[in-house]
Amino acid sequence: MRLRNVQNAIEILEKSPYYIKTPINMIGKWDKVFQNALLKETEENWFATYFNAPIHLEIGCGKGKFLIEMAKKHPNICFVGMEYQKSVLVRAIQKVEQENLPNIRFICWNASLVKEVFDHEISVLYLNFSDPWPKKRHAKRRLTHPDFINGYETIFKDTKTIIQKTDNLNLFIYSLESLSKCGYTLEKISLDLEQENIENIKTEYEEKFTNLGCKINYVKAVKQK
Amino acid sequence: MRLRNVQNAIEILEKSPYYIKTPINMIGKWDKVFQNALLKETEENWFATYFNAPIHLEIGCGKGKFLIEMAKKHPNICFVGMEYQKSVLVRAIQKVEQENLPNIRFICWNASLVKEVFDHEISVLYLNFSDPWPKKRHAKRRLTHPDFINGYETIFKDTKTIIQKTDNLNLFIYSLESLSKCGYTLEKISLDLEQENIENIKTEYEEKFTNLGCKINYVKAVKQK
Repeated sequence: MRLRNVQNAIEILEKSPYYIKTPINMIGKWDKVFQNALLKETEENWFATYFNAPIHLEIGCGKGKFLIEMAKKHPNICFVGMEYQKSVLVRAIQKVEQENLPNIRFICWNASLVKEVFDHEISVLYLNFSDPWPKKRHAKRRLTHPDFINGYETIFKDTKTIIQKTDNLNLFIYSLESLSKCGYTLEKISLDLEQENIENIKTEYEEKFTNLGCKINYVKAVKQK
Repeated sequence: MRLRNVQNAIEILEKSPYYIKTPINMIGKWDKVFQNALLKETEENWFATYFNAPIHLEIGCGKGKFLIEMAKKHPNICFVGMEYQKSVLVRAIQKVEQENLPNIRFICWNASLVKEVFDHEISVLYLNFSDPWPKKRHAKRRLTHPDFINGYETIFKDTKTIIQKTDNLNLFIYSLESLSKCGYTLEKISLDLEQENIENIKTEYEEKFTNLGCKINYVKAVKQK
């Protein structure tokens, strides 16, 4: 993603109630993150709706379009967007602040350290249009390298579900092999997501490229406890 | 495959030493099928080479090009070609009779009854350019339908290996999902086999279509005992 530096990024982020400054402090307590927020915002019935509500995580959430729309559409699911680049995350924060969404938070964090932030709390992990790292010597940096996939193991609550979208066919095939080798069952695979009867909220990147006629690859991989 | 009826197909088949007339009688005895043949043909050292040699099976071997070339290239592996259409199998038999190959046999049999013919004897199963049965209501006829995959279970000796090639992308994606759901690990996936560093002997059909620029999909799926 083309990155325009935002001078006062940290300031903008830290002012926002949608931003969690030190996510490492939240490990094991993510249900409370959403409960407290909801207590203020919805007051009644927060407990029944959000206690033990599933938490979905997007690693590399970029400017947040996908996750914000998901949060609007699924009020009974809580969403955490993770993005390493502060200047990009600012765009997500600016976008979400125009909404009133109790069930979404954003963190600035590195994918390789995700297990320091979530402990058996996540139900679904989204990997949307991750960097393909096309060179073989950079394979270890791909978010579906077995080291990464095994690193996600302890963030999941029960059944592990990883949903990937990418326009990069090489990354996609690599991911299918990698997920399969790590014990995931490939429940649904598509080489042209637009043609499928699958709920699909598009990322900023995806919208642009599908308008140009690019096909989107999709996999839903599941590993039982 | 376009089928030209061969009048005296049964006669031609039954005359050939490469054809096993009643494969059901061979269940559990396939090592002996190859031993006896080899005893006649190579006389010395047959025991060391062929006793417990791995047996590879192709379901839907068609005119036999793939399997005959494999048998030539891999003298330490025994090959069984299975084809339901006698008029097609005749072509394979006519081809193999021009060779002197101790490590190959052909049978005329139905894929859905394969477990009646092999009992924990097969190491690798090849499914090359199987009928895609594109209509959803015919999915049960695809050779990678879960009922078929589960039906192959008892033909395998130890580690189960299924290798599929197809030019039909819908069948391919269906197979990946199906194999994965049946507990197979997808060790290698390719959407363009020609570009891969994988040994590839082409079938008749494959040769024709790759010459026209068609891409061949490939999967090697493995399930441990």
